[in-house]
Amino acid sequence: MDPDAVAKAFVEHYYSTFDTNRAGLAGFYQEASMLTFEGQKIQGVQSIVAKLTSLPFQQCKHNISTVDCQPSGPASGMLVFVSGNLQLAGEEHALKFSQMFHLMPTPQGSFYVFNDIFRLNYS
Amino acid sequence: MDPDAVAKAFVEHYYSTFDTNRAGLAGFYQEASMLTFEGQKIQGVQSIVAKLTSLPFQQCKHNISTVDCQPSGPASGMLVFVSGNLQLAGEEHALKFSQMFHLMPTPQGSFYVFNDIFRLNYS
Repeated sequence: MDPDAVAKAFVEHYYSTFDTNRAGLAGFYQEASMLTFEGQKIQGVQSIVAKLTSLPFQQCKHNISTVDCQPSGPASGMLVFVSGNLQLAGEEHALKFSQMFHLMPTPQGSFYVFNDIFRLNYS
Repeated sequence: MDPDAVAKAFVEHYYSTFDTNRAGLAGFYQEASMLTFEGQKIQGVQSIVAKLTSLPFQQCKHNISTVDCQPSGPASGMLVFVSGNLQLAGEEHALKFSQMFHLMPTPQGSFYVFNDIFRLNYS
């Protein structure tokens, strides 16, 4: 599978989990994982999932506009850069966002999210 | 110097060079460096600088809104995530953009850009 296809599959899986079973995002992170969410730094799978499940909205839908990826260096990681919009239930306008993930390989041949940085694009 | 201060100093130096002496950006990249510019993948310092110096505008000014950074793993790299806007000479409205850099340490104790992904935030 080529890196672009891996990145696209990861992105689809991640946001589909976010939109349908947010607590299930725990499966994407490990203890060393870091999230910077709108400038707030959070580390570790439990703290990250606690943050994501306590955001001040319940139902949402991520619509992806672009996915870019690059190999991140000798550790066989992959950088994935996403732009899109986030539609909240009951809100007329979607929120535009940009997010980057640094995926690191697991011994099982899969990836986990080592770095995650999220920003809304205020207009 | 703490990582946030390093990231901020890098960002100021990078965009100030972009806005005043674009060919000088060669000093930020190495042969292994990768740039994805609006989806176009480019590798190597010469090709990257050729792309950046041939963009269809001359005078510009980057205004930075947010800078986030995280350590990228065992290789002592640093991820820097930037949002801001790009004002082109003679244009009324600035272009909003998001950009990420993966900085890797040099033997001289400085950093170079290993990964660079740039996207305009279309509204």
